Amino acid sequence: MIYLDNAASTEADRRVIEAMIPYLGGRYGNPSSIHRLGRISARAVRRARREIAALVNAEPSEILITSGGTESNNTALCGVPRPPGGGHVITSSVEHDAVLEPCRRLEAQGARVTYLPVDGHGMVDPGELRSAITPDTFLVSVMLANNEVGTVQPVREISGICGERSIPLHTDAVQAVGKMPVDVRELGVDMLSISSHKINGPKGVGALFVRSGVRLDPLVLGGGQERGMRSGTENVAGAVGFGEACRLCRENLAPSLARYRGLHRELVSGILSGIPLSALNGHPTERIPSNAHFTFLGVGGEDLIIKLDEYGVEASTGSACSVNTQQESHVLRAMGLSRDQISGSLRLTLGTHSTAEEVGRAVGIVKRAVAELREFSPLREKYGF
Amino acid sequence: MIYLDNAASTEADRRVIEAMIPYLGGRYGNPSSIHRLGRISARAVRRARREIAALVNAEPSEILITSGGTESNNTALCGVPRPPGGGHVITSSVEHDAVLEPCRRLEAQGARVTYLPVDGHGMVDPGELRSAITPDTFLVSVMLANNEVGTVQPVREISGICGERSIPLHTDAVQAVGKMPVDVRELGVDMLSISSHKINGPKGVGALFVRSGVRLDPLVLGGGQERGMRSGTENVAGAVGFGEACRLCRENLAPSLARYRGLHRELVSGILSGIPLSALNGHPTERIPSNAHFTFLGVGGEDLIIKLDEYGVEASTGSACSVNTQQESHVLRAMGLSRDQISGSLRLTLGTHSTAEEVGRAVGIVKRAVAELREFSPLREKYGF
Repeated sequence: MIYLDNAASTEADRRVIEAMIPYLGGRYGNPSSIHRLGRISARAVRRARREIAALVNAEPSEILITSGGTESNNTALCGVPRPPGGGHVITSSVEHDAVLEPCRRLEAQGARVTYLPVDGHGMVDPGELRSAITPDTFLVSVMLANNEVGTVQPVREISGICGERSIPLHTDAVQAVGKMPVDVRELGVDMLSISSHKINGPKGVGALFVRSGVRLDPLVLGGGQERGMRSGTENVAGAVGFGEACRLCRENLAPSLARYRGLHRELVSGILSGIPLSALNGHPTERIPSNAHFTFLGVGGEDLIIKLDEYGVEASTGSACSVNTQQESHVLRAMGLSRDQISGSLRLTLGTHSTAEEVGRAVGIVKRAVAELREFSPLREKYGF
Repeated sequence: MIYLDNAASTEADRRVIEAMIPYLGGRYGNPSSIHRLGRISARAVRRARREIAALVNAEPSEILITSGGTESNNTALCGVPRPPGGGHVITSSVEHDAVLEPCRRLEAQGARVTYLPVDGHGMVDPGELRSAITPDTFLVSVMLANNEVGTVQPVREISGICGERSIPLHTDAVQAVGKMPVDVRELGVDMLSISSHKINGPKGVGALFVRSGVRLDPLVLGGGQERGMRSGTENVAGAVGFGEACRLCRENLAPSLARYRGLHRELVSGILSGIPLSALNGHPTERIPSNAHFTFLGVGGEDLIIKLDEYGVEASTGSACSVNTQQESHVLRAMGLSRDQISGSLRLTLGTHSTAEEVGRAVGIVKRAVAELREFSPLREKYGF
């Protein structure tokens, strides 16, 4: 099996699992308990928080541990205090549903939301963002790297614009962390979402960076854990695994990026040169090197995924998270792709375990699968393949 | 070490950890992915959901998997659609903070909340609940078993009253599951919260039973997982562990309860007969058999916990979840206990691993610790010990 769906989820590192096991087993104390077993758990969570913070150059006190990237996004979007009258939010039209759906809830609650358009590469124009700001804009949320096509948004430029007007800026960095340097100070963001299972950590845990001084109302209320910002008994083993994944991610970032870049070159040139009427979607240069998103005209994306699965390549048409709904990708639509272009799309995403040999084999398998599907394509005449 | 803080957290069963490990390791697919690895994960979550449902006699489609009991409570409290004008909620004054804090948020958002008083045993009076209902009451939330003193509320009677008026009833059963038979049909509740790590499952996962037909708005929005009711990539390993914990809990319930009852008798009679000026708090009969909550006049609860910890007994003064705040227990206050009674409180909670030998030793250690602390107590004269 060649797994090329690392944007959907990644294999946990062996060291991550080993770090977790003691906290799934004998170290089961509740971190809020004052006895020894409780203190052991509390210490483990503190250590994990330090590792998470270090990965994005934050202070440990600025890290809120959550149940995942989606909860992090919801916490940021729903937590910023709103001005009377509902206020105004700016986001982009290519965000993940975990940002778009909370935005729709804000709209239902009386806020106005501007969904910034993107260019053909999926890129937001900071000038348009600047023009969209109104006196009651209370939040901007623009993702760092797109989950479908990998385009990296100009978040640093956006943070400059937001900073001038003291508008809190959130960025969904779930797909960016581990695939590019992510430094909250450098980026100048106020809030940043991370997910553990996208960086070889366990599922069910994530974090929200909340810059010191940013006011936020909690989403989940109760016993007052996470400094009152996220109640509920801490997922100790999950946090420990996530912390270890962050440590590994930070320590291996430079060689990882170099490796991704090399594999990405092989993958993209192999596909584009080997398959007629194919194109790489997303930005040609401003993109995370783990993502390669293609269009093959005349091919149904779903059919391609199923055939690839048969041939031992696990891939996706786009976001795993909305694949159940079978809807046309809102990201590709926002980029102005035609119906045929959208329907023939394939996302191949590299992971820390991907090898050159796998990429080479995957290219051959994709070529074969596309050719086979095109034989019976109703678009055969139209595109002349 | 003698662990008697099982109401705070429990040791995961060996079989629970073994069930989880494949899903922490090689079976890392995102359940939303349509390829083989994705389908393996989706199947595992489905199996887990069936086990969770079976434990409380629900349908799998009525089970929402969450990040824990606190999120389950927040989802129930914040999700029931509110009538215009804010509406009215009824709860009890002895709920966990994960219910009380969402109630306070509802108040801040314009709802009125009635906090029902309890008697000296911590019991709600269904007659008072009936009188508190107003035409705009849109939700009742009364816990099944109290986390501090173990009192079991008359939820079945309450569900009869709510049912007459079609008012949705939620019950926080986090401390009840595994310590008494919990059957959602029998109880007649519309929503019921469960936590995994209180029944020898992993932390960071829980469930909310939502009776088929009950309308609820999601707390966490995004990719539409959990039938749109709880977005975010599923915590597959956590769900699998929780499912296995539910299976074990269900299969061993009868012998577990018998064992708890025996150990409880030993513990309570040992403490009360061996320590003067001691009392068992909570209801004498309507209680979960795993909880023994005592008052020792003239002793500081915190000091006692620390001394017991030194002597190898891990216990709590009350709720672990709010121990960091060092506040006086709102539960004991609502029960009408005096300041001295509240301050001298100790909660010993049995678990599936507790043994008669441990209970015997713990009784001796508590006796010794209380006697030592009383020697220096400023209340020595007042109570004449």
